[in-house]
Amino acid sequence: MQIALDAMGGDHAPGPIVTGAVQAVAADPELRVVLVGDQAQIAPSLPGGQPSDRLEIFHCSQAVGMDESPVEALRKKPDNSIGRCWQLLSEKKVEAIVSAGNTGAMVAGGLRLRRFLKNVRRPGIAAVMPTLRGPSVIIDVGANVSPKPQHLFQYGVMGEIFAKHVLKKDKPTIGLMNVGSEEAKGHDLAKETQTLFKASSLGTQFIGNVEGRDLHRGAVDVVVTDGFVGNVSLKLSEGVFEFIMKTVFKELQTVLNVERDTALKALHGLVDRYDYSSHGGAPLLGIDGICIICHGSSGDKAIKNALAVAASYARLKLNERIVQELEATLPVGMPEE
Amino acid sequence: MQIALDAMGGDHAPGPIVTGAVQAVAADPELRVVLVGDQAQIAPSLPGGQPSDRLEIFHCSQAVGMDESPVEALRKKPDNSIGRCWQLLSEKKVEAIVSAGNTGAMVAGGLRLRRFLKNVRRPGIAAVMPTLRGPSVIIDVGANVSPKPQHLFQYGVMGEIFAKHVLKKDKPTIGLMNVGSEEAKGHDLAKETQTLFKASSLGTQFIGNVEGRDLHRGAVDVVVTDGFVGNVSLKLSEGVFEFIMKTVFKELQTVLNVERDTALKALHGLVDRYDYSSHGGAPLLGIDGICIICHGSSGDKAIKNALAVAASYARLKLNERIVQELEATLPVGMPEE
Repeated sequence: MQIALDAMGGDHAPGPIVTGAVQAVAADPELRVVLVGDQAQIAPSLPGGQPSDRLEIFHCSQAVGMDESPVEALRKKPDNSIGRCWQLLSEKKVEAIVSAGNTGAMVAGGLRLRRFLKNVRRPGIAAVMPTLRGPSVIIDVGANVSPKPQHLFQYGVMGEIFAKHVLKKDKPTIGLMNVGSEEAKGHDLAKETQTLFKASSLGTQFIGNVEGRDLHRGAVDVVVTDGFVGNVSLKLSEGVFEFIMKTVFKELQTVLNVERDTALKALHGLVDRYDYSSHGGAPLLGIDGICIICHGSSGDKAIKNALAVAASYARLKLNERIVQELEATLPVGMPEE
Repeated sequence: MQIALDAMGGDHAPGPIVTGAVQAVAADPELRVVLVGDQAQIAPSLPGGQPSDRLEIFHCSQAVGMDESPVEALRKKPDNSIGRCWQLLSEKKVEAIVSAGNTGAMVAGGLRLRRFLKNVRRPGIAAVMPTLRGPSVIIDVGANVSPKPQHLFQYGVMGEIFAKHVLKKDKPTIGLMNVGSEEAKGHDLAKETQTLFKASSLGTQFIGNVEGRDLHRGAVDVVVTDGFVGNVSLKLSEGVFEFIMKTVFKELQTVLNVERDTALKALHGLVDRYDYSSHGGAPLLGIDGICIICHGSSGDKAIKNALAVAASYARLKLNERIVQELEATLPVGMPEE
């Protein structure tokens, strides 16, 4: 299992990124990581300051900044670490790529190569969300901000596979994010997407519209939405979580005395459990290969998790299942793009 | 100050709705409420089972269901309480209308009459959100799911007036909800809206894009967004709040002993403080008159608050200020619709 890691991507790169890789190969004897980036900056964080058989360096001289315009950066910096990761994936030298760098550049790199799985029109980013009924998946959270109905339908198919095989849900339910539960609600995109779901073999798993509050209630296993709404939803959840936990901390610090430390310790445990930046990253589904996008603030733990997650998706043969299911669920009369 | 209240609107109507009106007139000696709905159902909740000088009943025979298709319901039920509220506002018999009923029908009722303030292209719903830096306003949260750039620009103008006069912010800052902070991010709607803000006299208060996590951080005083994203954001915030508070309750119940009750009481206080359904409702801005839309689950307290809020907006002459500001801030070359 060979995975390319963008060593230059992330707010704290390359130090903790490289350290995460060192931890990941220590935890998984079959894992080999190719660290993509500037050799001189990467080496000091490696054991003995040297690459090894299972921790190679693929040197490149450039990196995309976190706030750079993705398309422009990829064009102006041909030897950037994100582009080199995609190149390694494209040449089948690695099974997966992982980056905590510029999300837009990761997606743009994939779109430029167009190495999509068979029948996939546009890849989408899937994110796992904690809910009152266990984890659900929301797709797309930012790859495609102006999708067509058939893109959203395919996100449903890919999200369903993800929920079944990664979240281990039996016959996952699917809902379309909308402004109300009634069928006639929302914009044209929502209405046309509903029609596609109903005409498909996923019709029995598609429960129709869900609303914003249904996401964390776990009303469905798969929430389908466009990349704009999904991205706002993901970051908003993070912001609300931060807001409430800070408010709760402050409140309990004021009212508690003897059990203050016990309460604060428990709350810190919750923060760790639901910390959006420590999770294993979000897969860009629909790509021929595994591509995991991590939070920009990822530390070593998050990168270690993301590498383990990437390896598990490859082992689960998630992509083969997506190709099979897309063939089987193509809705009748689905228009060509 | 005369306000029409949709007595038939809301999950618990008409009982607590009418009780809220009784409380509101008791608290504000200048307030008179016209209860719009079925006389036989309304009267029992009035003091002495009778209408009075300050608690009139405007009888109508129909009501729009919470899940009915708005446009169809308004058409099929000509004597419905929401339509009658709008009629009273249109005939200048009341200064404001308040409903906890079908939001879509409230908006559709207003759009049908087209009694917009001068220069307003489309009304938008403004919602106050708690943040780490005090309350902010987000507009639109559901009146207009497919807006044009000039609609969003006007939401910024109206939101700015709201933040200045209702939230008492000096020179409020304005941000556009987007998927990233860089200028080139997002869909065409976002890019074109930015151009309008920059060309306007609000240019110095417009700080550019904000992301989902910035909302509850209070990064700006006014968050401008389309009604689809705004509606999902509002309900999502409610859902995350519910999810986290339930999780925190459970955790603290497990780990605390002697101070368990103290902690739970403090948390209940927080829930009350941020309870999305107990707030004073959200104004539909841009209407010639005051229109307040309440959460469907509103009880008497929420309705009492909403009536007080409606009266305060009328007294603040919010609409006169909106008309003045819209004239002053029209961006150069703003296209006709």
